[in-house]
Amino acid sequence: MGFYNKYLATTKAQKTYVCIGLDSDIIKLPQAVRKEPNPMLAFNKRIIDATHQYVAAYKPNLAFYISQGAKGIDTLLQTCQYIPKQIPIIIDVKAGDIGNTMQQYAHSFFKHFKADAITINILMGKDVIEACLQITGSFVFALAITSNPSANDFFKHHELDSTLAKAINQVSAKRIGAVVGATQGSDLATMRNLMPKHIFLIPGIGAQGGSVESVCKYTKHSPENPLFLINSSRGIIFADTSLHFATTAQKETIKLRNQINNSL
Amino acid sequence: MGFYNKYLATTKAQKTYVCIGLDSDIIKLPQAVRKEPNPMLAFNKRIIDATHQYVAAYKPNLAFYISQGAKGIDTLLQTCQYIPKQIPIIIDVKAGDIGNTMQQYAHSFFKHFKADAITINILMGKDVIEACLQITGSFVFALAITSNPSANDFFKHHELDSTLAKAINQVSAKRIGAVVGATQGSDLATMRNLMPKHIFLIPGIGAQGGSVESVCKYTKHSPENPLFLINSSRGIIFADTSLHFATTAQKETIKLRNQINNSL
Repeated sequence: MGFYNKYLATTKAQKTYVCIGLDSDIIKLPQAVRKEPNPMLAFNKRIIDATHQYVAAYKPNLAFYISQGAKGIDTLLQTCQYIPKQIPIIIDVKAGDIGNTMQQYAHSFFKHFKADAITINILMGKDVIEACLQITGSFVFALAITSNPSANDFFKHHELDSTLAKAINQVSAKRIGAVVGATQGSDLATMRNLMPKHIFLIPGIGAQGGSVESVCKYTKHSPENPLFLINSSRGIIFADTSLHFATTAQKETIKLRNQINNSL
Repeated sequence: MGFYNKYLATTKAQKTYVCIGLDSDIIKLPQAVRKEPNPMLAFNKRIIDATHQYVAAYKPNLAFYISQGAKGIDTLLQTCQYIPKQIPIIIDVKAGDIGNTMQQYAHSFFKHFKADAITINILMGKDVIEACLQITGSFVFALAITSNPSANDFFKHHELDSTLAKAINQVSAKRIGAVVGATQGSDLATMRNLMPKHIFLIPGIGAQGGSVESVCKYTKHSPENPLFLINSSRGIIFADTSLHFATTAQKETIKLRNQINNSL
């Protein structure tokens, strides 16, 4: 049904805006899965089993899979296949190419991996967006402003972030959303003003310093339909590396879900 | 020995500045290789056999490999292994992530695929560069300005391209180069002024409209050591899709090599 409708249906049904980043770094995996034939896949399956009732999306980052070569790419595929159909999958690849090349990425992620959305980097211009949108039913999250320490090097160059937001806003909210870093303080409200109807994918809470309360206050579209996903990766999947890692991941997911819902 | 020294050694030994983009789109492969067990790999091997004496680098673009899933990633690995050791490999991935995530990409491309360089997108700031450079011996080409029609949407936003170039210029030319699109006219000279000692990776000649003569005139560091690579992808690898595709690719490579050398 496409990412946008799937997002609306899942967030309504599960009353959650939590996105779990499946950044399943092989060297950080708990001892409990290391003897499995495919430890990353075993880990992801247990995390998904424990959390799927409490999440609005899963977001595997390509880097952690391609670092394992062909086997890692197969793990990514099997992970995507394991995620329950009603939960949207966002592959975090920050792809930023054009024309035929970008279409190859889009075809790969939307058709082969059956992602519902991917993240993109539109530094090369509108050509990047257009190439993606040629794939029927595709949905992309374009970087508007990120949460890392050096985000201001270029995003704040003469308010490039606002210029990116305006370009995103020109495309239907049913086809594109924006990555907006949680650490950006007052810019969060500016971003929502510039993109009133677009879904925000928000990284950077917790370890990176963003606050759930300020994210909710400044970026929600409305309390019933905030039009955002708040991502947590390590704070959930590696909260505990004991035998009980999956149970702890579930608890952390529920905690974040409640914290968001209480702040809406 | 690292990309920078390999580039200097190979360009001196082979007197060529041609980079071949191995954008081996599976649907464009010649009939002659389609019955092979792995048509993309068979195609790449025949292109490499026919051209390696005349090139300064090969540049496979990740998109065309990941579009084939795990098998495509294995093809990329086998292609990298097949390229003669003295010829630098640039994996075109335009990666643009940070911290631990970017290090996963860097580790993957430099250690697993044994690339000599990768392309990166530094929209997220200096964090992107720093994460890559933590891998010993790594070399990156950062997008400074590209050759596509919409490149000016953001690269020209208050001369962001110049700001990117200045950031690139702050890092040793032995660790970073710049992607500078051939179609950018007078900006080519500006880019060289801003990055006098850095190697330029230049896409966009031929089909995209950039001229070899103007690229050489405006971006060469010196006739003996122009510090650039001029990339051609489709113009070489898909110049001919008959049985003689490899011979034609060789002829086109030699033609481009001579055209560049005559313009220095």
